[in-house]
Amino acid sequence: MRLAVTLLSGGLDSTTVSAYARSKADRLVALTFRYGQTHGREVRSAAQVAEALGLRHEVVDITGYARLAWYSSLTNPQRFRVPADRLAGASREAGEDRDIPNTYVPLRNTLFLTLAAAYLESMALDAIEGEGIPTDDIDARIYIAPNAIDYSGYPDCRPEFYEKVRETLMYGSKLWTQYGVPMEIETPIIRLSKAGIVKMGMDLKAPLDRTWSCYLDGSEPCGRCDSCVLRARGFAQAGYPDPLPARPGMG
Amino acid sequence: MRLAVTLLSGGLDSTTVSAYARSKADRLVALTFRYGQTHGREVRSAAQVAEALGLRHEVVDITGYARLAWYSSLTNPQRFRVPADRLAGASREAGEDRDIPNTYVPLRNTLFLTLAAAYLESMALDAIEGEGIPTDDIDARIYIAPNAIDYSGYPDCRPEFYEKVRETLMYGSKLWTQYGVPMEIETPIIRLSKAGIVKMGMDLKAPLDRTWSCYLDGSEPCGRCDSCVLRARGFAQAGYPDPLPARPGMG
Repeated sequence: MRLAVTLLSGGLDSTTVSAYARSKADRLVALTFRYGQTHGREVRSAAQVAEALGLRHEVVDITGYARLAWYSSLTNPQRFRVPADRLAGASREAGEDRDIPNTYVPLRNTLFLTLAAAYLESMALDAIEGEGIPTDDIDARIYIAPNAIDYSGYPDCRPEFYEKVRETLMYGSKLWTQYGVPMEIETPIIRLSKAGIVKMGMDLKAPLDRTWSCYLDGSEPCGRCDSCVLRARGFAQAGYPDPLPARPGMG
Repeated sequence: MRLAVTLLSGGLDSTTVSAYARSKADRLVALTFRYGQTHGREVRSAAQVAEALGLRHEVVDITGYARLAWYSSLTNPQRFRVPADRLAGASREAGEDRDIPNTYVPLRNTLFLTLAAAYLESMALDAIEGEGIPTDDIDARIYIAPNAIDYSGYPDCRPEFYEKVRETLMYGSKLWTQYGVPMEIETPIIRLSKAGIVKMGMDLKAPLDRTWSCYLDGSEPCGRCDSCVLRARGFAQAGYPDPLPARPGMG
């Protein structure tokens, strides 16, 4: 019994990972968080992606988190703005920029994994105690879409972080402490280029036309922010047209 | 510059720890979470305790968490109830009960620590980048009140869990990755008996008369649940009267 939770933001990366998870799990639930992000458009995209993939979808309100993690341009646009010199993504190409950009939201991936683990543990405890499924038959996994190539500046996108958080979630759970069932964290695109992610998504027939990558909240992608630029480059290098193009002339 | 966050539920243990933290920090914020707990009475107690201690107090709504961590009697009273044979706390005295009780809420302490770390990291990044305080002068700590004696059944009350979660929070943070500033987790009562906690709270002049320990949500403590029984035993063994007595004849 392969139980899994996939973290679905509605972007290209998490949509590709969720399509992958669907091929690996017997029971799969997609989780999306509302945490006061300025780009709420992606929550609507997540619902469309989950529907296209045929997944049960839970949208969970954790708005209070934005008040706690206030030192970020994504949760506190009054104080911070995405810096202009990052809009073209140029510094990242050079590999010289060691500063973490202000789009970093304190402990965000740690929080998302903890909430996913709480849901996964509930599913697994119910399977064991409620349905009587033997513990040896339970396989519990979280699928998440960090990327260490494009987001090398983010501390919570590094592979070594995922080994740490996996141990913490295990040690803090009844599932492991009482039943000896681990929770694994799958990061299937962590070492892929954006072009590699596009290819993987196309191979899996992931609904990339429903995804949203732009940091801004317009009716169409802005085509200029870091995230739009990375996406456009990925499709171009993979040799596919983006099914959700940015505004002409802005790319 | 000693920056700290204390997790204040409004109970005896976290009130004692918060009084201790107040003596150790230059800037201290108390955090209380609303997560759909059935004993919402403790949130009101937390506000009274914070006021008595003169602390800035943030009450943060994370109600969505209860939907995720649904396999617990504290988040899902329709399905689970605190089992009658645990009400007297007798099995715990014998030290033979290896099952984790259904008052365990999946990954709760991991979640609370992650949210506290997000706030602490925001405070610290603001001190460094906003105020220009040198990184060597920053000391960042989270104070939390787990207890490995009375709650030995809970996976997230064991000392070894705190070493794991400390590393995860550090590795997932900009504060550590970019600035080399660790976040420490202080568990000052983890090895104390309930009597020891009462003595410590009395010595610190903690406002124990404002605290709430009962799992139920009445106008007075029930005097019969696990938490009330442990509290009464602690005051009795410490040799102090409880300033907030249970209903007469129910203890």
